[in-house]
Parts: sequence; structure tokens; C-alpha cells
Amino acid sequence: RGLRGCELPASLSGRIMRPDDANIAGNVHGGTILKMIEEAGAIISTRHCNSQAGEHCVAALARVERTDFLSPMCIGEVANVSAEITYTSRHSVEVQVNVMSENILTGAKKVTNKATLWYVPLSLKNVNKVLEVPPIQYVRKEQEDEGKKRYEEQKLDRLETKQRNGDVIFPVINPEPHTVGYSQSSLIHLVGPSDCTLLGFVHGGVTMKLMDEVAGIVAARHCKTNIVTASVDAINFHEKIKKGSVITVSGRMTFTSNKSMEIEVFVDADPFVDESRGRYRAVSAFFTYVSLSKEGKPLPVPQLLTETEDEKRRFEEGKGRYLQTKAKRQAQMQQAAQH
Amino acid sequence: RGLRGCELPASLSGRIMRPDDANIAGNVHGGTILKMIEEAGAIISTRHCNSQAGEHCVAALARVERTDFLSPMCIGEVANVSAEITYTSRHSVEVQVNVMSENILTGAKKVTNKATLWYVPLSLKNVNKVLEVPPIQYVRKEQEDEGKKRYEEQKLDRLETKQRNGDVIFPVINPEPHTVGYSQSSLIHLVGPSDCTLLGFVHGGVTMKLMDEVAGIVAARHCKTNIVTASVDAINFHEKIKKGSVITVSGRMTFTSNKSMEIEVFVDADPFVDESRGRYRAVSAFFTYVSLSKEGKPLPVPQLLTETEDEKRRFEEGKGRYLQTKAKRQAQMQQAAQH
Amino acid sequence: RGLRGCELPASLSGRIMRPDDANIAGNVHGGTILKMIEEAGAIISTRHCNSQAGEHCVAALARVERTDFLSPMCIGEVANVSAEITYTSRHSVEVQVNVMSENILTGAKKVTNKATLWYVPLSLKNVNKVLEVPPIQYVRKEQEDEGKKRYEEQKLDRLETKQRNGDVIFPVINPEPHTVGYSQSSLIHLVGPSDCTLLGFVHGGVTMKLMDEVAGIVAARHCKTNIVTASVDAINFHEKIKKGSVITVSGRMTFTSNKSMEIEVFVDADPFVDESRGRYRAVSAFFTYVSLSKEGKPLPVPQLLTETEDEKRRFEEGKGRYLQTKAKRQAQMQQAAQH
Repeated sequence: RGLRGCELPASLSGRIMRPDDANIAGNVHGGTILKMIEEAGAIISTRHCNSQAGEHCVAALARVERTDFLSPMCIGEVANVSAEITYTSRHSVEVQVNVMSENILTGAKKVTNKATLWYVPLSLKNVNKVLEVPPIQYVRKEQEDEGKKRYEEQKLDRLETKQRNGDVIFPVINPEPHTVGYSQSSLIHLVGPSDCTLLGFVHGGVTMKLMDEVAGIVAARHCKTNIVTASVDAINFHEKIKKGSVITVSGRMTFTSNKSMEIEVFVDADPFVDESRGRYRAVSAFFTYVSLSKEGKPLPVPQLLTETEDEKRRFEEGKGRYLQTKAKRQAQMQQAAQH
Repeated sequence: RGLRGCELPASLSGRIMRPDDANIAGNVHGGTILKMIEEAGAIISTRHCNSQAGEHCVAALARVERTDFLSPMCIGEVANVSAEITYTSRHSVEVQVNVMSENILTGAKKVTNKATLWYVPLSLKNVNKVLEVPPIQYVRKEQEDEGKKRYEEQKLDRLETKQRNGDVIFPVINPEPHTVGYSQSSLIHLVGPSDCTLLGFVHGGVTMKLMDEVAGIVAARHCKTNIVTASVDAINFHEKIKKGSVITVSGRMTFTSNKSMEIEVFVDADPFVDESRGRYRAVSAFFTYVSLSKEGKPLPVPQLLTETEDEKRRFEEGKGRYLQTKAKRQAQMQQAAQH
Repeated sequence: RGLRGCELPASLSGRIMRPDDANIAGNVHGGTILKMIEEAGAIISTRHCNSQAGEHCVAALARVERTDFLSPMCIGEVANVSAEITYTSRHSVEVQVNVMSENILTGAKKVTNKATLWYVPLSLKNVNKVLEVPPIQYVRKEQEDEGKKRYEEQKLDRLETKQRNGDVIFPVINPEPHTVGYSQSSLIHLVGPSDCTLLGFVHGGVTMKLMDEVAGIVAARHCKTNIVTASVDAINFHEKIKKGSVITVSGRMTFTSNKSMEIEVFVDADPFVDESRGRYRAVSAFFTYVSLSKEGKPLPVPQLLTETEDEKRRFEEGKGRYLQTKAKRQAQMQQAAQH
């Protein structure tokens, strides 16, 4: 780590959070933050991949590792986003992005997010050609080894999720409160030019912002309070989405603990005008939300009522993820306490 | 007509059309134009309603008369929007808005839209109180009489549509191409601060832009070509939508002629966080789209396949509206030819 | 002056200010206003330069003269922007833009800005070719003479600033409050299609809006209160910025008087994907901010602590600009008083 940082001022960026970046309680949407993170990652990795002579390319987001929203950000605060490249494989770049909220009136600063993103350089001439990534220099040999380990781990995980991707959300007529059907939601969006990179494909950050929007509405419909994004599980971007496509983003609740809700979100793309290809699943992910009181304290969440066998199975799977994350976090805290 | 014009510069507005205002073929979305029209109307009517001493108010859109999109507008052109007040009743204001596209390279100008909007002044202190409108001065007596006739006609029509509003769009699983279920679409939108007036209610123009977005996706899904808005039937805004609400905008095709498609759009509001009130129908309307070739010529439209009795009935009703509009237009053209 | 007015309706424009146009205290950002000014100037000058037969062109912003923000504008008010062409040289157009804020509830109107902009017509076919400008007709001979004098003056000034442009902002670790390093800030922005003109280069107004955003963050970090733009020094646009570039906008405080802060802003462009060219300085400028109490009264500003020789030199230069502006304003007021 720490190879670049200060040498690359352009990897630091600050922007004031506006009313449209936030919900009516003034909390900045998780999706706004995810979009800023991805833009910083896209810039630093595209710059790096073009730093040597040869074919020009655009870095496309392939994966975002699980990320937690450590503290809320509010309207009027400055979001400071910094990015650095921490590992390169032959065809991919790992970028570490940190987000800090800064209250410029009090000077208070808080870490909001630490995210790890993987990018792949696609040729500007032929979007289906993946170019080679110039290697970075490591200060210590173990940085490279640890990076390689992270690289291998995410590669395995990407293969796995590719299979899970077939599920569909069916509409429910006259659902009961707190059932899955009651809160499930979907939106359509026509992909415009500003949603896209130079290659004419949707920015990963734009997709994540829409996913957070749907997940947030599902969460709010379920508990009818002010809700905020607590974390996002690893997201893999298997398929590109072309300009002019219509994307359908749909979300359903899969699990509730006492104080959190897990929502599964699907992104389907329909390149209906200029392609022979039909509708396809482009991305899927799990978002976790918490419900907050007016004072910003976590509130209890109504339990999700599962009705079908599939819903019960998904609830158990969600519980598994919840317990695993909890265990991991406790292990980290113990480790930290020992140092 | 023509009472004001140059005396009220703020009722004139020009803006360059950007890629984000248009589809990928470069045609500006009908919704972009409807939003500009409504903003011009809101400014001129709010200004007028506050022109006398007394309680301050914000003019809220109550109704837009049927409007045709007479010629397409493109990226890079300037949209010139002008507005004037043409009639006032005790509690409402009629505004005439004209939109002209101007190619600032060639100097070519074309009338794009002529729209008539009705606004009602709501008290800034008490949003449920409708204030009185200062009367305008007419140059000729018949202007007032014609205005009064238009006022009475729209009042009747508003009562009628209020009853039609109960319908719901049900989802269809695995629909066949060119059926109603195949192209029907819906989106959800969380109402943010920039969508709202000073009173905290959604601008009519924001709602119309979302409606056009959904209708356009329905049309594109049906015929898989470049589509543009041809006209919008009268729209009545029966119910206000509050900041923080989630709105669901859904559209379904009701009728196709050889070269046009009619799409019915519903707007439902769910003020789920801060109100005891449940979901309600806020607006509904019919949009007509045409399909264009790459050269901008109208293309034949695949016929809509109706399956249920309701779909067949709606198709016949759509046909009725289509024939009525056609007859009206022919009568106008004959009248024009005689002068 | 005053040649046109009502004959050119498209040079008049009105728009309601939204929450996203303003800071959390409700004051519209200087950058929002600069962007509206530039759009009005670009429309009127592009229209004029294409008013005679011949090669088509797009007017590109070359320079904005120093402009003062005379009174604040608030959310809900209408910004009325009017533009007229006041001088033409062989290859450039001088546009005068006035902005008036209008409270449509009370009818109160205030002049917010008077700005002078210079545009240059670039051929649509060959962006490096500057076309000839059709001459305007002057009502009085002295209008032409005065315009020519303004033209010569700005030409000299443009040459000067071209040299100053080499400076860079270095990051500082653990800076003390009120030092230069403490408040300096930067943002990165990926240039999208809607940021650009028909020629594919960034609108001057988009650049100015980003500059104001960074300068505003610097000012707020320094004095931790509600701050507003008071004035912008002349800005020269030496170099175009292409679509797809990444721009880095960085700002540092150079000078403080009792009640104002001067911030220097640099814009660097990195056309890293599709050009052989490296990063370059595109624009630089000085913004002046004031700090306001909750009642809108100017507050004292903490003095800037200069540490290095360069910082002390820049402080003295800033003081020179401050005293010069003050002297000029007093001279104008005395002149006005004598009439």
C-alpha cells in the first residue's frame, strides 16, 4: 500500500453534498457514495493503464469487494475521496478507495467507507479485447504477495456468483405487510449518454447508484422509517450494458435481523433497439440497511414474513451471511484489541 | 391573447439541448419539453397571482390541455419557450406556452409545441387554501368570452377523468411479443428536494417528464425502433405529491394505428414515511408515440395483440380517441384552407 | 449598448432556483450563476456568428471580465438572464450579460451580476480554424470606439496571464489551521457529453461552476461559516478541454482582508485516453469570497497564515489586487456621486 497517494493529486477529490444527494432526513444516499468511489477508481485505473505507449483503453469495473458504510454523511458536508492502486495482475487493477466526510464548519472528519475495486482495461478500438496492465512497483515484496492472494480469492468468488444469477422477482397481488411481496420494488431506466464511459457502456457507479435506490425503497417500504445503507456485499459486473439499453433494477427483501435488513437486487439489461440480443442479467448483489430514529439511533426492524419455500430458504441463506459477517467482524475486533 | 409578450421578459426562456435531454438518435425527449413548458407556466402564473397585495401563494399545475409535438428538436438546438396568461377565472389561471426550436447554426426556427396549462394558486401558509386570482385585462371582449368557454370545458373534463382513475396495471409472466403485457413498464422514483416547489410538492413538469420516460420505454419495447412523442392527451393533476414520497409510474399500450401507438400512464404516490395516508393515484394520461426510421420518416407500427376483454375494450376506446382527433384535425385544416 | 433587447427573445432566459443550485443556507452558488451567464453568452454569440452565409461555427468562450456578485440569490427565486452583443472585432464577440433575481412572491427584483464575456467562433469542420465575425451596427460612433478600447485592453491581459500559469498546488501533511495548506482543496471530474458543446469541448460555464465549487470549499474550510462568492477576477480560457478528459480543479487561499478571502483556482486537463498530449493547465483564476452570519451580514475573516516565501509573495500580490479593486470602486462611486 501507500505507493502513490500524495504523488497523484488527481486521486484526491472533494465535493459538497447537496440536497439531491441525500434523503429527506439529510443522510447522503449510499448510492451517491458508491458512484463517487467508482468514478475515482475508474479515473486512476484508466490513467494507469494508459501510462505506457501502446493501444489506448478504458478501465471497466469488474468487481467491488464488500464495503461497510461506517458512519453517515450529511448534506453540506464535504465528501473527500482518495484512491490508490494497490495491486496489478496481468489483466486487472486493484484500486483502494477511501471516503471521508468532513464537516467544514466544525472541522470534524470521519471515515465513511473503505472500498476495494477491480478494473479491467478494454481496448478503445475493440471493446472485446482486454489489454495488458503495466505493472506497479511495490515497496515491499509482501505487498505483492498479499495482493496476489486477494486477486486469487476474488477470481474464485466471481466464478461462483455467475451461476447464482438466474433468479427472477415475481410480482405479488395484494400482499400482506412485512411479507416479501409487500416491499419488493423495481424501476426501469433508459441508459443515456452521461451514464456511459467513452466506450459507450454504463459506468459501474451508475449501476450501483440505481441498485441502492431500489434497495432503499424496499427497505423503507418494509419499515416505514428513515433508512440508511449499512453495507454492500461484493458485486461482480459480469456483463456490460450498452448505451440506449433499458435496464430494469428490482429488489426484494431476503432476511431481517433485529436491527438490519438484507435486500437482494437484480439488474437486467434489454438492449432492445440496436441489438439482436435479448434481455440478460447484468449484475446482482446484496445490500444491508438499518432503520434510524430521528436522533440517528438504530431502530428495531419488523421481522420479514416468509411465505413460500423459496423465501424461507433465502431467509436462511441470508441468516448465514449475517452470522458469518458478524463472526468475521468479532474476530477482527479481537485481533485489533490484541495489537 | 398577446397582452404581454415583451413586457414580461421572464416568460421567455432559451436553453441549449444537451445529450442528456435526448435519446440516442439525438431527438429531444418529449418529457424534457413538457418540463420546460411547465416551468415557464409556473413562473408566469405564480408571478401573476402574487401581483396584488395579500397572502402569498405558489401556482400549482391543475391541468395541461392536449398538446401535439409538431416537429422534432435535436441536440445542440436552442429551445425557446415563451409564456403568456390568456385567461383568469376566480381561482385559476390559463397560460399559453409556445416552444420553438432554433438551429443557431443555420438560423432555422420551427414551432415545436403549443400548450395550454391551468394553474391554481395555493396559499404559502396553508397549502389546502386556494386563493383568488387577480383578473387580467382583455384587449377585446371576445377574448374573455372564449377564455370562459375553455374554462368551462376543461372543468367538465376534469370531473370525468377523476372517475376513470381506479385502474391498475397487473404484471404478466412470460408475455408474447406485441401483447400488452410484453411492453408494459413501470418505474419508481423517490421524490427529492429539487423535484419540488416552495410548498414541498412535486412540480407538474417533473411528473410529466417521468410519465414520458415510462411511455417511451413502453413504445420502444413494442416496436424496437427509434420512437418519439407525437402528442399528449389532456392531463389532470387531481392530487398533490409530497416531498419524500415514492412515486410509481406505470405504462401500458392501449391502441395502435398503422403509424402510431397510444400508451396509458398512471402515477401512484406513496407518502410512506411521514403520513398516515396510503398509496393513491395522483395522475393518469394518454401519450401517443410514432416510430421513426433513421431518416426520420414514420415507420409502420406492429399491431397491438389484445388478449383479455379489458384489453379489447381499451383498444376500442383508444381507436375512438384516435378517430376523434383525426376528424378534429381534418376539420381544422379545412377551416384553415378556407381562410 | 442597448442595440437589441426585444428583437432577440432567445437572449432572455428565466429559471427557478432549486435546492441543488444553492448551499445549505439557501444562497445560490456563484458557480450556478456563472454557468447560466455563459450559456446565455454562448447562445447569442453562436447565433450571431452564424448569421451570414458561409462556414458554420460554434462560439467558444475565450475570456470573462471581472464580475461582482452584487446581491445574493435564493432558492425559489427566478434568475432572469439577458444578453446582448456590445462589440465585435474581426475574430471575437463581446457579450454583456445581466442577471436579475426576482422574488415572484413579492415581486422584488435585484441586479445580481453584470458580466462581460468574449467569444471566438471556431469552425464546425475544423476546430482549430477561427472564423470571421459579422460586424454589428452601432447606434453611436463612440460605442464602437469604447468597444475597441475594451478589446485592446483584454488582449494585453490575456497575453500576461498565459505566462503565470505554471504553478502547482502541493499537498501538505498535518497543516495548522488558517495556513494555506489547511484549506487547499481539489476535485477531479470526468468530462461527460452533457458538459460539452457541439464541437466536443467543455462549455466555459461548466468549468467555471467547478472552479467556484472548489473555491467555495477552500473558503469554508478556512473560516467554517456560511460563505458566498463576492467576485471573480478576469478568467482567460487559453486551452480547450476535450470530451473524455479528466479535469483536476485545485484551489488555495492567497490573501485575506478583514472581510474577504482571495482563492486562486487552477484547472488542469488530462486527455489521457485519446491523445498523445500530456496533462496541461487549461485555466486559472482568482475568486473572492465573503463570510456571512445567519442574518446575512459580513463576518470578520481569520487572517491567512503564510509560511513559505512563495506564500508571502502571493499574499502581497493578492493585497495589491485587493487595494487596486478597492481604489477603482471608490473612484467609480465618486464619479457616480458627481453625476
